[in-house]
Amino acid sequence: MTEIPHRAQFEGEPAWRVALERRYRETPGVGDTPWNSTLASLLDHRSVRDYLPDPLPSGTLEVLIAAAQSAPSSSNVQAWSVITVEDPERRARLAHLAGDQKHIVQAPLFLVFIADLSRVHRIADRLGETSEGLDYTESFLIASLDAAFAAQNALAAAESLGLGAVYIGALRNHAVEVAETLGLPPRTFAVVGLVIGRPDPSVATDIKPRLPQEAILHRDVYSTATEHEVLARADQHTLAFRQEQKLDPIPWTRLALGRLHSIASLKGRHVLRTRLESLGLSFK
Amino acid sequence: MTEIPHRAQFEGEPAWRVALERRYRETPGVGDTPWNSTLASLLDHRSVRDYLPDPLPSGTLEVLIAAAQSAPSSSNVQAWSVITVEDPERRARLAHLAGDQKHIVQAPLFLVFIADLSRVHRIADRLGETSEGLDYTESFLIASLDAAFAAQNALAAAESLGLGAVYIGALRNHAVEVAETLGLPPRTFAVVGLVIGRPDPSVATDIKPRLPQEAILHRDVYSTATEHEVLARADQHTLAFRQEQKLDPIPWTRLALGRLHSIASLKGRHVLRTRLESLGLSFK
Repeated sequence: MTEIPHRAQFEGEPAWRVALERRYRETPGVGDTPWNSTLASLLDHRSVRDYLPDPLPSGTLEVLIAAAQSAPSSSNVQAWSVITVEDPERRARLAHLAGDQKHIVQAPLFLVFIADLSRVHRIADRLGETSEGLDYTESFLIASLDAAFAAQNALAAAESLGLGAVYIGALRNHAVEVAETLGLPPRTFAVVGLVIGRPDPSVATDIKPRLPQEAILHRDVYSTATEHEVLARADQHTLAFRQEQKLDPIPWTRLALGRLHSIASLKGRHVLRTRLESLGLSFK
Repeated sequence: MTEIPHRAQFEGEPAWRVALERRYRETPGVGDTPWNSTLASLLDHRSVRDYLPDPLPSGTLEVLIAAAQSAPSSSNVQAWSVITVEDPERRARLAHLAGDQKHIVQAPLFLVFIADLSRVHRIADRLGETSEGLDYTESFLIASLDAAFAAQNALAAAESLGLGAVYIGALRNHAVEVAETLGLPPRTFAVVGLVIGRPDPSVATDIKPRLPQEAILHRDVYSTATEHEVLARADQHTLAFRQEQKLDPIPWTRLALGRLHSIASLKGRHVLRTRLESLGLSFK
């Protein structure tokens, strides 16, 4: 990764402190923390959108999927699947459906994580049992969470190997067309895509600042007592980050609001529930 | 961890192969894979339900939360929060609401991951903007996924430090009472709890077998061509695991079906949507 200017300030500091300062752009509130290479890799996450076309070493896909499957699953039901999209035409179609994101085509690996209630449904059919429990919002949530836990393990595993990655939530912009492209059976949907590959070293990436820890972490009860001041700091950190990245100077609060506040900001996903119902999912 | 008998077969094999054989109880389909300590930790996951009461080293909570915050977030909206529950009475109440799971009280750390659309709502209020986009199923899903990605990073981080962990999905059995206990504002709910601590070394734990990789991983299109045979293998692996654990001999397909097939199997969560609506979440 190309070094960017603000990192110069970290010379000589312990690794855990550098990692926390990079993530938060603030002085850590603790004097020491446990530390290891896994934590270093997790805290170093950044979204990568420029990849070399190099194929991945033999066995990479299999070990990433094994990591994904090692994530917890609600009652071990494993209500998820994953599709590795290798056919160039199918990749191109998915890239187009996800708002023409070129890295979906460019990277050597593209995984799509599926919330999958169809497997249990097929088991019920074979055993002559009912499956009415699948029609409830709780089952939709179990399958979505199982897929998310698995995807996050795959991403963490890839990054631990020095690979870059980025989620593709925009597959939900066109849930039905994505399902058709991947031949998904009823009671399944594509929760999120995951692009994986070797980052193009000629393109700088950096760690995006997150909200100060006290905005996210509450003790015993949810509290907004300091939120206004803490979010003002977050706005400053985001403005500094965006200046470095040569992006428009928009504070975090405006960016966050802009992504969720209106129907238009949902980029077509305001019809997600209707679309998922047409794919056989129910929200009782 | 106490060694259990079936591990004897692995002597002299490379670490990646041992890890894959433990996870799948099958011979790996690849001749080699990339490997490192992060992968070893991810593949070694097992649920821990017996903890020593020892407090965690200073800085542990902070670095686990930093790992959680380093997970990707949809458009960096960070639509989640986490509550560390330290007050013994509050812990006891949550343990009771989650079906009297003693480890919630016993372990030194109990985190509750919150899907949080309230922060963006407060920002909209302060800026005098609308927030109607928050009322859609897509926004509910974004917040739930953000919480799940964060929780999974916290779990992976804890396990990398030699700690044990287990998710508590049963907080959803009583979503409204849990929200009251944690003082949650409208438009938030507790997605999942996470118990963390030092495993009690006197209680053996083992890696639960997952479905063979070909049951989960599809190439280009979803396929059920080999599912019947593959699930029969899964049933055998689960029967072997349950025999070792002195559990009733129930195959995986029966266990999975038993968790989702009926309204009763949802353990009160068939009313989740109504409960979440009463907490201010919407599913347009």
